[in-house]
Amino acid sequence: MIVKLKPGASERQINQLIHWIENQGMSVNFSKGENTTILGLIGDTAKVDDSLIRALDIVETVMRIQEPYKKVNRKFHPEDTIITLENGVQIGGGHFAIMAGPCSVESEEQVIETAKAVKASGATVLRGGAFKPRTSPYSFQGMGAEGISLLLKAKEVTGLPIVSEIMEPQQLKYFEHVDIIQVGARNMQNFELLKVLGVVDKPILLKRGLSATYEELLMSAEYIMAGGNKDVMLCERGIRTFETATRNTLDITAVPFLKERTHLPIIVDPSHSAGMYQMVRPLSLAATAAGVDGLIIEVHNDPANALCDGPQSLKPKSFDSTAKAIFKLREIMKDI
Amino acid sequence: MIVKLKPGASERQINQLIHWIENQGMSVNFSKGENTTILGLIGDTAKVDDSLIRALDIVETVMRIQEPYKKVNRKFHPEDTIITLENGVQIGGGHFAIMAGPCSVESEEQVIETAKAVKASGATVLRGGAFKPRTSPYSFQGMGAEGISLLLKAKEVTGLPIVSEIMEPQQLKYFEHVDIIQVGARNMQNFELLKVLGVVDKPILLKRGLSATYEELLMSAEYIMAGGNKDVMLCERGIRTFETATRNTLDITAVPFLKERTHLPIIVDPSHSAGMYQMVRPLSLAATAAGVDGLIIEVHNDPANALCDGPQSLKPKSFDSTAKAIFKLREIMKDI
Amino acid sequence: MIVKLKPGASERQINQLIHWIENQGMSVNFSKGENTTILGLIGDTAKVDDSLIRALDIVETVMRIQEPYKKVNRKFHPEDTIITLENGVQIGGGHFAIMAGPCSVESEEQVIETAKAVKASGATVLRGGAFKPRTSPYSFQGMGAEGISLLLKAKEVTGLPIVSEIMEPQQLKYFEHVDIIQVGARNMQNFELLKVLGVVDKPILLKRGLSATYEELLMSAEYIMAGGNKDVMLCERGIRTFETATRNTLDITAVPFLKERTHLPIIVDPSHSAGMYQMVRPLSLAATAAGVDGLIIEVHNDPANALCDGPQSLKPKSFDSTAKAIFKLREIMKDI
Amino acid sequence: MIVKLKPGASERQINQLIHWIENQGMSVNFSKGENTTILGLIGDTAKVDDSLIRALDIVETVMRIQEPYKKVNRKFHPEDTIITLENGVQIGGGHFAIMAGPCSVESEEQVIETAKAVKASGATVLRGGAFKPRTSPYSFQGMGAEGISLLLKAKEVTGLPIVSEIMEPQQLKYFEHVDIIQVGARNMQNFELLKVLGVVDKPILLKRGLSATYEELLMSAEYIMAGGNKDVMLCERGIRTFETATRNTLDITAVPFLKERTHLPIIVDPSHSAGMYQMVRPLSLAATAAGVDGLIIEVHNDPANALCDGPQSLKPKSFDSTAKAIFKLREIMKDI
Repeated sequence: MIVKLKPGASERQINQLIHWIENQGMSVNFSKGENTTILGLIGDTAKVDDSLIRALDIVETVMRIQEPYKKVNRKFHPEDTIITLENGVQIGGGHFAIMAGPCSVESEEQVIETAKAVKASGATVLRGGAFKPRTSPYSFQGMGAEGISLLLKAKEVTGLPIVSEIMEPQQLKYFEHVDIIQVGARNMQNFELLKVLGVVDKPILLKRGLSATYEELLMSAEYIMAGGNKDVMLCERGIRTFETATRNTLDITAVPFLKERTHLPIIVDPSHSAGMYQMVRPLSLAATAAGVDGLIIEVHNDPANALCDGPQSLKPKSFDSTAKAIFKLREIMKDI
Repeated sequence: MIVKLKPGASERQINQLIHWIENQGMSVNFSKGENTTILGLIGDTAKVDDSLIRALDIVETVMRIQEPYKKVNRKFHPEDTIITLENGVQIGGGHFAIMAGPCSVESEEQVIETAKAVKASGATVLRGGAFKPRTSPYSFQGMGAEGISLLLKAKEVTGLPIVSEIMEPQQLKYFEHVDIIQVGARNMQNFELLKVLGVVDKPILLKRGLSATYEELLMSAEYIMAGGNKDVMLCERGIRTFETATRNTLDITAVPFLKERTHLPIIVDPSHSAGMYQMVRPLSLAATAAGVDGLIIEVHNDPANALCDGPQSLKPKSFDSTAKAIFKLREIMKDI
Repeated sequence: MIVKLKPGASERQINQLIHWIENQGMSVNFSKGENTTILGLIGDTAKVDDSLIRALDIVETVMRIQEPYKKVNRKFHPEDTIITLENGVQIGGGHFAIMAGPCSVESEEQVIETAKAVKASGATVLRGGAFKPRTSPYSFQGMGAEGISLLLKAKEVTGLPIVSEIMEPQQLKYFEHVDIIQVGARNMQNFELLKVLGVVDKPILLKRGLSATYEELLMSAEYIMAGGNKDVMLCERGIRTFETATRNTLDITAVPFLKERTHLPIIVDPSHSAGMYQMVRPLSLAATAAGVDGLIIEVHNDPANALCDGPQSLKPKSFDSTAKAIFKLREIMKDI
Repeated sequence: MIVKLKPGASERQINQLIHWIENQGMSVNFSKGENTTILGLIGDTAKVDDSLIRALDIVETVMRIQEPYKKVNRKFHPEDTIITLENGVQIGGGHFAIMAGPCSVESEEQVIETAKAVKASGATVLRGGAFKPRTSPYSFQGMGAEGISLLLKAKEVTGLPIVSEIMEPQQLKYFEHVDIIQVGARNMQNFELLKVLGVVDKPILLKRGLSATYEELLMSAEYIMAGGNKDVMLCERGIRTFETATRNTLDITAVPFLKERTHLPIIVDPSHSAGMYQMVRPLSLAATAAGVDGLIIEVHNDPANALCDGPQSLKPKSFDSTAKAIFKLREIMKDI
């Protein structure tokens, strides 16, 4: 951590600051130029709250040299995390998975029919929303606990592990048999929820917030891991930019960038990113070529009558052709 | 609502769609051009989920002509909402208030000393954080329930009503004697929390999310009002842009724009927007000149030792001079 | 085009407006709801300046139903544009090209050595900057006309057609033997330059501005095509977002989205997007998988001593392996 | 400048780098921690191209401690720049000016009538566009040289100095009698144009690009000043964000922030920022309260028939009341 002092800082003030830093277990490298005095903090700065230092009268700016995250940091854990589900399916470290299913669970028939279809096409996890975050209070809010039950029926019938979104800590009781708990983009910094999921013994699929930086996403994963839960997957699902022709802007660079910084598996959601079904196939292929560990894709047996997000859902037939293309590409990527 | 159909839509499909719309209680205006067929939906479209229509195979785009919010909409409620606190302080409809106090409650002495100071300078509400959303799990997370107790002591001593942030529904039990419940930017779309606050009998200070549009902010207020709670204040606190020299970008236009669209009071937070104490005064004056109903300002008796957000806190003395300037300007604005 | 009138519009005013619209050769569909009066403009609205209508006292909003671009619009020109260079190289309509070379031309040896290397690896166009847009007046500004001469020497030696950036109309005289003229991101809306390039008989590579929408990019291409020049390629090179860990954010969705809207070839620049050489390979593969028509990649024989943008340049050896992977993937994409 | 090395850097490589830096006239402070090796560059780093260092194999990141701009930097020029026009009008250093007039010049009558009106209301500079940057090639492109002639007539009649936009170097010949040359947002990084204006003996009004950072704006001003022209004004005119309800987002913090960093006068354009005439008054007052040195406001005697940007233009009567309010507020600000 680099601390740049203001021109007027007195020797006494500087010594006080150095003393304070050394008390926190770090050593200080002092450097005085013509216009600038710089302190370099040496030691474990990850747990230092830089705003404390920035608040000092004599400090002009503070710059981090080291990442503020530790448990998610590849530097300290060079090996890829591999997540293993109940039925043996693995994600990360060379293992690739497609999670597919409806945006929201609407009926037993819908979810089972869709589950069978996506399984037949090669998906190894069933996705489905029971608790739905909706911008408008007048939109369909999901089937709630009943939706989870229907997903569990589909799991029973098809053997597919399931992933579903939690919206607040009190809903945790419904997730006992859910295989992967999803944290939605709008809750990426719902820190109370993250803390609760830190002590849960289940993999978490953490979606990047609409305007969250890579570092913030990694810090939210750090929250979960700080609680003891090691099984976190990060999901890029499109960020908010000035472009309005698509719902969001898929940040494809997140895939190689995050893989460089963290050992956690990286998932891409091509359905929510663009909000247009025609984009799902090219974006899925792009993410696969960029080295993603998994995809989460919306599939609905009847998108025109879906109760939410119909425009971005694939029909089972399109999903089948898309999945075939993804697996083929994935196969080839090994030789490229 | 305007529905633009794809060139290939058959007459049968179009008739089906018209039939479906009419079944929802709206009438349809049909218009066929050379390249384009347009349906105009007439009636109460606020509760129509436009993604359902967008999902149809024959639909190219859907555009809203009317706002999707009703209860917060000035069109239907032209008169300003005035919020009245326990001790008679009013906000909105020409009533102006400064809320001030520390970012987070740290000790009895700190909060009482600061409360006395801000009251002496003219603040009529005491702000203070007990439950703190922090990006890093390693940063100070607030004093929690104890922090609320200390705020209540300061309320007792000074008579100032208090505003504090809630982070999840289960914390509600601590807020019984809190006068205004704040929803932070990161929770603006924590819909479960909004629903709970909709049935609470207390004013809510709803902060705009870092990348939330005006419409989304208004929809989140609509969530609260849909539950029955009419006392909602909207708070602009800076949005995330590409500019990194300041913490966030204060969207000053939010003040006149939102006041045009909604009857709810509009508050500005000049402390979090820029994240720099030097900006608090000019931004406060700017917001006042733009017609804001209130300001929420961070004041700390010892910012250099604050446990969070020190860099953006004013000392009591600077706050005093800033408050004087604000009140003077506010006075003059009546004649301008 | 949909025109929503304000509630208070008088019949006389409405009739005047309808009359004015009809005078411009369009017909009007009139629709009056309880709260809203809507005019639908039918006819060729692409050339209507919607701000004229928006300025009227009785108008609340104006929404376009049709795209404001015509010559670049795939609706009116369904077949892919194929650009053919002097030496027979083709781009677009199934023809794929890699353009590669140094960010800026620095010496004869550098450019010829790099040209030979990229040709050997399969590049079919040599890129190189002679006139360089630099944020700081103190940075290297390019070799100018002499840089173009060196590129032409490399063209002579290797037979590779060349692409180089123009920064203002008066530089055109140096581009007589340049094969493709590049318009940089910062000049995407330098309309005077676009007009001049509209009457030039050479392909133009138009880069998307840092915060330009798809529609603005297409409108800038429309400027060139409106002048008569039909050979325009669009280049996605990363947009500016809140994320600062990478230089810009590659908007991969631009590839399938733009290909849907326009018949022009789409190129991706993976070097400038991320500004990090490690990202060039995964982003190139992602763009190829998404269906791009070409890539423009920075290669430098000695990136550590490059006079500009060294961090994002590949060495010839890495470029060779990247190009091999791209061609392999491209080959496979035909069967996927 | 701080250079963080990669863990694997060899002593030989480090010594080479230190040697290279010292050769450029700087000294190096070397600091080796457990995980990190840091070099601190001491001396005049403003002219160092940090990408050269970033490109080195052994370098992980480079961080600037000092600003890359010098001539515009308040640190080296603490006193406010005051710009004095031909007729004695001054801007900056406590002198405040309103520039007003039509978006584009349309006729002699329009420009003279508007000029008289804005002068009567207290404007001291007449604005008017002759060369117009328009997104669509089919929109009105301005009257060009003839427009400048009409502005000069209005100058003759009213005595108001004029400000008008230049779009490319070759138009300079028409600006001989223009008092202030404006560089539009889209040309803020048209470096060739900036260079030309650096050797012109006239004040320049430099508008911030739609997605330009403060630093980039200051660097563009540095381009002009590097050529010798000391009279530059910076204009905040709204930046591009995700919010689409307004045309752009006025970054009000730019006013106090830029005034802290530079000695140049800061101007705000409240008309283009929001693109809505109702916002001009509150935004003008906000900017004045924030300490701006001047405002540039669009006024049209007949906005409904304006050939461009009608929606954001004030009528002379509204401008008069707005100007009165601004001057009143400005008067009061001295005592606040």
